[in-house]
Amino acid sequence: MSRKHRSFLAPGRHWQDGRVTLDERESHHLAKVLRAREGDEVETFDGQGEIHRCRLIRIDPRRVELQSTGAVTSAPLRPAFVLAVAVPKGKKMDEIVRQAGEMGASRVVPLLTDRTEGSTDPKRLEAKREKWRTGAIEACKQSGNAFLPEIEPFRAFPDWLASLSGETFNILASLEPDALSLRQWLDKNKAEETPDEVALLVGPEGDFTPEEYASARAKGFLPCNFGANVLRVDTAVVCAFAVAKEEFRAYLA
Amino acid sequence: MSRKHRSFLAPGRHWQDGRVTLDERESHHLAKVLRAREGDEVETFDGQGEIHRCRLIRIDPRRVELQSTGAVTSAPLRPAFVLAVAVPKGKKMDEIVRQAGEMGASRVVPLLTDRTEGSTDPKRLEAKREKWRTGAIEACKQSGNAFLPEIEPFRAFPDWLASLSGETFNILASLEPDALSLRQWLDKNKAEETPDEVALLVGPEGDFTPEEYASARAKGFLPCNFGANVLRVDTAVVCAFAVAKEEFRAYLA
Repeated sequence: MSRKHRSFLAPGRHWQDGRVTLDERESHHLAKVLRAREGDEVETFDGQGEIHRCRLIRIDPRRVELQSTGAVTSAPLRPAFVLAVAVPKGKKMDEIVRQAGEMGASRVVPLLTDRTEGSTDPKRLEAKREKWRTGAIEACKQSGNAFLPEIEPFRAFPDWLASLSGETFNILASLEPDALSLRQWLDKNKAEETPDEVALLVGPEGDFTPEEYASARAKGFLPCNFGANVLRVDTAVVCAFAVAKEEFRAYLA
Repeated sequence: MSRKHRSFLAPGRHWQDGRVTLDERESHHLAKVLRAREGDEVETFDGQGEIHRCRLIRIDPRRVELQSTGAVTSAPLRPAFVLAVAVPKGKKMDEIVRQAGEMGASRVVPLLTDRTEGSTDPKRLEAKREKWRTGAIEACKQSGNAFLPEIEPFRAFPDWLASLSGETFNILASLEPDALSLRQWLDKNKAEETPDEVALLVGPEGDFTPEEYASARAKGFLPCNFGANVLRVDTAVVCAFAVAKEEFRAYLA
């Protein structure tokens, strides 16, 4: 019996006469980890919405070849969601990126804030980023998400804030006393046009400093609360993203 | 400088003349792990909404004594949220229970479904449950949640379904084609009274079987989707809970 697998078509892989060769990592995974065989069904995704149904025609642990039997292109989530997250200690960010991939974030921005803990050595940060990218690919494979989130380089929080264009709808996960629900903000905002992009900003375990809060607000971030309790960063990211997706889905309906 | 800590007041601990003695586990944690000292500020919570601000008056690794300086009672989340979750393999459920504690679930029901993987040995299940209870206490401490979620014993899915009273608002996280958003279900439901309790049912990694879906629907569960992608169980639980909290918050406003 043939089995069905899912493979990532890395940038630079090109179709020729309906055929494509997977890169070394994906070839190895299919051939050695999943023990795929000639004739197996493989779905490829390029992370930009195009999915091909394929038949495996040549098994080689470094160069697996596929023949397309049909393609589907899907539309990306609108608005696009950018998750800007103060990177927590340890491996928590691995899970956050995985969940961002499942839920369909367009970009993840790892932020360094005043109260960020852990290494800031550029080499280690770059290694982490590469690991998260692999994790995001896996999450897309498992969840059926056709759009690979971009994992941006680490950014110092003030630099990232300064880089924002002003056309994004900006949400700040906040426990400040005057924070509202996202729905309340959207109700106030009814007349305005629907944004193409929504940024969700989530602070570190020890929270943003008052100065950081002030600078985010000065940049137009709307303080939103997602319940009364103090959530850990990973929980806050998923809550904020889930609620924002639902609110904009209803807003656009 | 004195420091501030948080301790759980296990059932059976009684106040006498504004004083209380912590149990062995909490005493050990304060004295040995956090190295608390006499004079430190300690907040106790009983998991049922009562929080005391206290002064530590006697340090003893097995019997720490506290003096209350004031109490606050908070109201529980309304509606109450019950998370009924097909227990995933490995340690994923530890995180789910932790996040349920942060977000304020009233109860967690670990379910055994047709496609549940992992041990079903009663002894191991009971050990897991005890571990989750400890995890829930920690989550309450960290998040400031005054209400400890009850961790119910493992239940076979059909038995749990049969035990439901019919007065709960029942939400089924579903990828079925006719699933609606929770807001759409609530809009249809507008005339009805607000429920005291909402149950969120989340299936296993391999999904519910068609028979399980049918039996949940027969019991009045409303199939809700939380986006187009296939979420892992832990992501699905947090998404469904976050969205349901926000929807009922707006519904009640």
